[in-house]
Amino acid sequence: MDFEPGGFEQLWADLAPLGRSAASGGYFRQPWTAADSELRAWFVEQAEARGLAVESDGVGNLVAWWGEGDHGVVTGSHLDSVLDGGAYDGPLGVVSGLLAVDRLHARGFEPSRPIGVSVFVEEEGSRFGLACLGSRLATGATTWEQARQLRDRDGIALADAVEQAGLPGAPGRLVEKIGCFVELHVEQGRDLVDRDAAVGVGSAIWPHGRYRFDFTGQANHAGTTRMEDRHDPMLSYAMTALAANKQARLAGQRATFGRLEVTPNGTNAIPSRVTAWLDARCDSDEALVAMVAEIERLATERAGRDGTQLAVTPESVSGAVHFDDALATRLAEVLGGAPVIPTGAGHDAGILAAAGVRTAMLFVRNPTGISHSPEEQASTADCLAGVEALADTLEELAR
Amino acid sequence: MDFEPGGFEQLWADLAPLGRSAASGGYFRQPWTAADSELRAWFVEQAEARGLAVESDGVGNLVAWWGEGDHGVVTGSHLDSVLDGGAYDGPLGVVSGLLAVDRLHARGFEPSRPIGVSVFVEEEGSRFGLACLGSRLATGATTWEQARQLRDRDGIALADAVEQAGLPGAPGRLVEKIGCFVELHVEQGRDLVDRDAAVGVGSAIWPHGRYRFDFTGQANHAGTTRMEDRHDPMLSYAMTALAANKQARLAGQRATFGRLEVTPNGTNAIPSRVTAWLDARCDSDEALVAMVAEIERLATERAGRDGTQLAVTPESVSGAVHFDDALATRLAEVLGGAPVIPTGAGHDAGILAAAGVRTAMLFVRNPTGISHSPEEQASTADCLAGVEALADTLEELAR
Repeated sequence: MDFEPGGFEQLWADLAPLGRSAASGGYFRQPWTAADSELRAWFVEQAEARGLAVESDGVGNLVAWWGEGDHGVVTGSHLDSVLDGGAYDGPLGVVSGLLAVDRLHARGFEPSRPIGVSVFVEEEGSRFGLACLGSRLATGATTWEQARQLRDRDGIALADAVEQAGLPGAPGRLVEKIGCFVELHVEQGRDLVDRDAAVGVGSAIWPHGRYRFDFTGQANHAGTTRMEDRHDPMLSYAMTALAANKQARLAGQRATFGRLEVTPNGTNAIPSRVTAWLDARCDSDEALVAMVAEIERLATERAGRDGTQLAVTPESVSGAVHFDDALATRLAEVLGGAPVIPTGAGHDAGILAAAGVRTAMLFVRNPTGISHSPEEQASTADCLAGVEALADTLEELAR
Repeated sequence: MDFEPGGFEQLWADLAPLGRSAASGGYFRQPWTAADSELRAWFVEQAEARGLAVESDGVGNLVAWWGEGDHGVVTGSHLDSVLDGGAYDGPLGVVSGLLAVDRLHARGFEPSRPIGVSVFVEEEGSRFGLACLGSRLATGATTWEQARQLRDRDGIALADAVEQAGLPGAPGRLVEKIGCFVELHVEQGRDLVDRDAAVGVGSAIWPHGRYRFDFTGQANHAGTTRMEDRHDPMLSYAMTALAANKQARLAGQRATFGRLEVTPNGTNAIPSRVTAWLDARCDSDEALVAMVAEIERLATERAGRDGTQLAVTPESVSGAVHFDDALATRLAEVLGGAPVIPTGAGHDAGILAAAGVRTAMLFVRNPTGISHSPEEQASTADCLAGVEALADTLEELAR
């Protein structure tokens, strides 16, 4: 073979330009786009250079297999990003999976079960609005019939986007070959910084929901309509954004309005509609239900005062996920006493765990704690420690 | 001539489908687009059917002349709309101008000065953000050098948009042929409803400004970033929107945030930037300055608490315009005691008045008071009363 599998620096350099915005320095790696095709081609090339057999399902979820058979030990993450995202969220897990395979080869390890390196599509939900879409389809948590009509912001249906990317569509059941799943991910917070540890083991994922708030009012002229005659949905929304922040702050939970669409969105027109998406995460299912109910109550009350209407639609709600306790404890031990920590971020690992797969996560320290931003960071030393930890983990699981 | 000039119903029926959204029933008549070309072609056809000589300047401002010479008496309005606007705002003045010419012909009136029917481009500023752009260019209030680099939301420069519409660009000085200007417009409010009058005469336009508020913060993950670690510009914006409303309400003035751009606008990302446009109008220049300063002060204070930054850029500010008092009084008399009323809406008439042209406005009753919305209304009887009043006005001015 002509092609030499790359080491950490090489793999990272390969990925650096793909889907990057020169303006912000951030990544726009939306699924089933040209950037996504390049990322997929890069992964196939790297996997084949390692002698791995790449399997794709109908929507483009990929697993590169070392060995054949059932009950595979699979590690991996995703290559898509949020809009204007960082370099590490997703790709670090894929790169580390490929390099962990290299480490195991170098150690002369011979797995008793197949080992796979996976890439799940549309983990961020930044194009079709449903997070972990690829793993949901691969596990049947979401059916193809439910998903195919989802539309992106340009009105393109998922089925058409997948077809335009040269994929057949119907996803299949990749999950059936996965006996155990480990996802390595850059930490999205500063827990490992506070604990002075390069690598941690995941204990749980907080419950999480996305809720669409449609505020409708009365379009009118911004210059001539008396303040007291208005039915302005922007005001109902603005109070709701502040109320959501306050509720989350008081309860020690998380609530964010980060996405908004205003109609008609003209400077001199009072809007007829403001649609806003609430991202809410809590440390228990009960707390999530209570917090969202309170935000909706306050929003409805304000809409009543503004003479506007509110409709709230849950677009995706995921209950708490607890990773395999015994496995997390064992891995913390194997990794020399790594801390075991929960996360507020959703991951494909959560979908696989909910589907009954024995699942674990590893986190790599992020010095800024920032993620979903070009400012997301991880040091090369910590990334290499992550690769070593992942190799140890795979050896433990596939020995 | 094969073509018969249309009456009110015919002209209105011609215009009804142009640039209309089937979904909302509202109009999207942005300048230098396909819809705009159709509107211009319709105007040229109607003007020529009346034997009027159509003159276009370099950016597409049109005047259809009856007679030749200087010191013309010009009436007209605009054909562009806000995004999702109503049928009457603009077109009613153009249609009434054409029909007033018909009335004067029918009366056997022979003007002593040329009479013109005008269409100014981009009155709403919905594409390039600067209201009354066409009349500003025609009067030199804005120079072509200042304007040509303006960009629309898709990044297209004004000079390119104008060229793509088949127009040469540099605007010329249409204003030099205009001795007197009268704009008829649907009322944008309920003053004439309260006064039980079909037609009113304009006294003044409130001072008006558009200000861009750029709030910048720190993009981060919506699920993992503790509320106390955030620098979320959405919160600074939300408080500012509520504060602007409260300030305007308390002072009996107008303040609106109707347009917003969020970056990156993803559900699971705390925004890095929220850009919002304030539309502010007051009954005096002093009140406008004071209100905007107070809104900016409150916004800056909140940004300080949120750890975000705020930059405020005035994009266009127009001082109070007082139409010719003697002319307004005389017209109210000619029209049998029509009420004389101010307006909070900007108009090309205001730009011409500021350029030293003797200027008047006529308003036609709007039963809903709603404008900049598909729900804008005017009865046919009131529209025909407006045509009659406009014909009387032109006769008075060009006798």
